[in-house]
Amino acid sequence: MYFSSSEILSVGTELLLGDIVNTDAAYLARALAVLGIPCYHQSVVGDNPARLRAVLSDALARSELVILTGGLGPTCDDLTKETAAALMGKTLTLHAPSYDRIRTLLEKRGLPETENQKKQAMLPEDAVVFENDWGTAPGFAMTADTEFGQRTVILLPGPPRELEPMFDVRVRPYLASGSEETIWSMNIGLWGIGEAAVEQVLRRYMTESANPTAAPYCGEGDVRLRLTARGRSEEECRAMCRSLAEELCAVSCEPYKPGILSDYVFGIDCTSLSEALVGMLREKHLTVSAAESCTGGYIAKRITDTPGASEVLSGSFVTYSEQAKQALVGVRAETLAEYSVYSEQVAAEMARGCREAVGADIGIGVTGVAGAEDAVVLRAGEAHTVSAGTVFVACAVGNDVRVERIVLAPGRRAGTEAREYVRARASQQALFMALCAARAL
Amino acid sequence: MYFSSSEILSVGTELLLGDIVNTDAAYLARALAVLGIPCYHQSVVGDNPARLRAVLSDALARSELVILTGGLGPTCDDLTKETAAALMGKTLTLHAPSYDRIRTLLEKRGLPETENQKKQAMLPEDAVVFENDWGTAPGFAMTADTEFGQRTVILLPGPPRELEPMFDVRVRPYLASGSEETIWSMNIGLWGIGEAAVEQVLRRYMTESANPTAAPYCGEGDVRLRLTARGRSEEECRAMCRSLAEELCAVSCEPYKPGILSDYVFGIDCTSLSEALVGMLREKHLTVSAAESCTGGYIAKRITDTPGASEVLSGSFVTYSEQAKQALVGVRAETLAEYSVYSEQVAAEMARGCREAVGADIGIGVTGVAGAEDAVVLRAGEAHTVSAGTVFVACAVGNDVRVERIVLAPGRRAGTEAREYVRARASQQALFMALCAARAL
Repeated sequence: MYFSSSEILSVGTELLLGDIVNTDAAYLARALAVLGIPCYHQSVVGDNPARLRAVLSDALARSELVILTGGLGPTCDDLTKETAAALMGKTLTLHAPSYDRIRTLLEKRGLPETENQKKQAMLPEDAVVFENDWGTAPGFAMTADTEFGQRTVILLPGPPRELEPMFDVRVRPYLASGSEETIWSMNIGLWGIGEAAVEQVLRRYMTESANPTAAPYCGEGDVRLRLTARGRSEEECRAMCRSLAEELCAVSCEPYKPGILSDYVFGIDCTSLSEALVGMLREKHLTVSAAESCTGGYIAKRITDTPGASEVLSGSFVTYSEQAKQALVGVRAETLAEYSVYSEQVAAEMARGCREAVGADIGIGVTGVAGAEDAVVLRAGEAHTVSAGTVFVACAVGNDVRVERIVLAPGRRAGTEAREYVRARASQQALFMALCAARAL
Repeated sequence: MYFSSSEILSVGTELLLGDIVNTDAAYLARALAVLGIPCYHQSVVGDNPARLRAVLSDALARSELVILTGGLGPTCDDLTKETAAALMGKTLTLHAPSYDRIRTLLEKRGLPETENQKKQAMLPEDAVVFENDWGTAPGFAMTADTEFGQRTVILLPGPPRELEPMFDVRVRPYLASGSEETIWSMNIGLWGIGEAAVEQVLRRYMTESANPTAAPYCGEGDVRLRLTARGRSEEECRAMCRSLAEELCAVSCEPYKPGILSDYVFGIDCTSLSEALVGMLREKHLTVSAAESCTGGYIAKRITDTPGASEVLSGSFVTYSEQAKQALVGVRAETLAEYSVYSEQVAAEMARGCREAVGADIGIGVTGVAGAEDAVVLRAGEAHTVSAGTVFVACAVGNDVRVERIVLAPGRRAGTEAREYVRARASQQALFMALCAARAL
C-alpha cells in the first residue's frame, strides 16, 4: 500500500462540545509520521450525517487515505460507519466472525446481549477487518474508486484503549507494506531556557537545515526541540538526528543565556523529565524519596509512571498538614513556628527527613501555595502574605540541601487550573533538581 | 455580537505530527457551547501558508466566526497572523501598546529583547486587541466583509497557559454581548455499568427527548451521561437538566444490571470521582489516607487535585517496596511471606496501617501488578503467577476492611501505556470505594 497523502477525521459531538480532548488524533498523527505517510489535515465533526458527509467528501478530494475515528459504538447516535460506507458506495452486511466475537466477549464478561450490539458487526462486504481484542466494535478498511481517484477509508473505534492497540497490532502492518520513506522525529528536552532564546541561538540551523530539520516548541513548562529526519529507515533517520543533536548541544547560548545548550538539556530522545530522572538513577544505582505538601503525590506519581521505578523508589510521603510533616518526616515544630510552613527551612527539613526515613540517596521536599489565592502565615508570631504560586523546592543529598524558591504566576486561572499549573511546574522543578543531584553523584 | 456558526482552526506542525494533544480545541469548544455559539467543525493544519489559506477559506465559507489558535509566536515558522490577515484584506502595522508591553515583560524577566519579538506586536489596524497578561503575543479579533458575507476571525496564542486565561478574561466578554441562547451541559458520572447497558436502559429518553437531550459516552474507565439543555440562561438550563437527572436516576437497570441507575452514580454535575470524594468527605468532616504501591501516589495526587483537599487529607504514603510497606504502614513480614505482596491480606494491612498512622477515618491500600507483564511471587514458599493488571484495592473504616480484587486487561499496550491504564483504573476504584465508605458513615 502506498499513500501520498492522508488525513484524520474524528467524529463525536463530545469532541465538538469540548467534553473530551482528542488524544486519538495525536496518536494517529504520530503513527502516520513514523510510517512516512504525509498527513496535512485533521478535522472534527459531530454525530451528524449531513456534516460528516460534507467533511468526509472534502477529505477524500484532498487525501488518498482518510482515517475516521469514533461513532462505531452500539448506540443509535453512532452513525459514522453507515455514512462513510454510503459515500464510498458500499453495502453493509453482517460480518459473522465479528458478531460471534462480540457475543463471546459479552458472555465472558457476564453481560447480556443487547440488540444494538449486532449493529457493530455490520461491515462492508469487501472490507479488510481489524478484529477488536480490546472492546466490541471491529475496525476496518474499505477501498473504492471515487470521483477523485482510488481512495481508502479506515474506520476505528473512538476509545483510546481500543484504538491505540488496534492501530499498533492490526492497522500498522496493513499500512506499512508500501511505504518507502520514513519520517522520524526526536525531541531534546530543555529546562530553564525559553522558546524565543532557543530560536535565536539556533536560528541558523532552523532556517538552513533541510534534513534533518530543527524546530523548538513549548511543552508544559519546558521547551522541546524537535529534530525531524527523512530517510529510508528509522535507523538512518535516528543516526542523522543524533548527529545534529550533538552539534546543537555544543552551540553557545550567549548573549541570551550563559553556557552552551547542553547545560539546559534534561534529556535527549526521552519523553519526560521523570523518565530522564529514573534512567539516571537506575544507571547510577541511586534511590530517591519525596515529602510532598502542595504537590500532594504528583512527584511520586510521575516517578512511578516509568517502568523500573521500583529500583529507584522504595517509599515516599504526602505530608499535607503540619502534623504530618512533623510525624512522618520529622519537621521540627520550632521551624514551623519560626519560618512558617511556606519556607526554605521547612522544605529543607522535609527533604532531609524523607531521605532519612527510607534511607534514600536523594530526598525531595516541596511546600508552597498551589491555589489561585495568596496565603497568610505566621512567622515568629508575625503575619506574612505568601503569594499564590510561591513554592519552595528542596533537594537533599547526604547533609547537603539545596533549596530553590520558585514563583509561578497562575494568572487568572480558575481554582483547579491554577492548582494544576503550579503543581505540575513545581513537580518538574523537583525532578530537575533531583536529576542534577544524581548527575553530580 | 451575534454568531450563528463558528469553528475552531488550530495551526501547528507539532499537532499534525502528534507531538502535542489539542487541548486548546477542547477548551474553546466548551467555552463556545456555554456562550451558545454553535460550533460544528474543528480543524488542524500545519505551519504552511498555502494549506492554512485553503482551510481558513473553507471555514469562512461555512462559519461566521473562526477562532484560530497557534502560530503567533516569535519564531520564523509562525505564520498564522500574516496568512489570516492577508485573506481578510488587512494590513499589519506595529501596535505600540503591545510592543511596549512585550518590552516591559522581557525586562521584568531579565530577558534580552530579540528582533523577532517585534513581529508579535504587528497587528491589523482596526483589530480588537486582547492584551496578553500571561505571555508575549497579543490576541485579536478582526472583522471584514468577505465574499461569504461579514466574517470575524479571532487569533489566539497556542500555549494553553496563555490561551485559557486570555479567553476567559478578554475574549469571552467580547463574544458574550450578543448571544441570546445558552447551551448548557451537565454530566452524570457512572461507575460499574457499561455504555451499551446505559443506552438500553435510557433508550426512550435518548430518542424522545429533544430538550434537554441525554447521551452516554465513555470516560477513562467510567461512563458519563451528558444532559444538554438549551434555554435563555444558564440557570434555566441547569434547572431543566437537574429535573431530567432526577427522573433518570430512578430508572430501573433491569435486566441489564440490578437496581436503579442512581446505584451507579458517583456524582452529578461534578467533574471527577476525586471531586465527588473530596466533596463528600468535607460535607461529613471525614479524613482519608492511602498506602499506595502500584498506584505510586496517583490516588493522593487525584485527591489533592481538588481545592479544599487539605481538610480531608493530612498525610499519605507511597509504599512501593516491601520494606516501605513494613516500615511506614506496619504490614507484617509474616503476611508478606504467607500471602505475597500481591494479596488481599497485604492490601488490607496497608489500608488499616495508613489509617492508623495518621489517624484518618478512612484508609486505602492498593497493591498489584501495574505493568504489561505477569509477576511471579512466592506464597508460603510456593511460586504463583499473578497476571498483569491484577490489583487488590482495600478500604478500611474502623476495624472493618473491604477488599476488592480487580483484574484489568492492559491488552497489548506498550509498557508505559499499560501502566497508566492499570494505575488510572485502580486509582478510580479506590476513590469509588472510599466514596461508598464515606456515604455509609
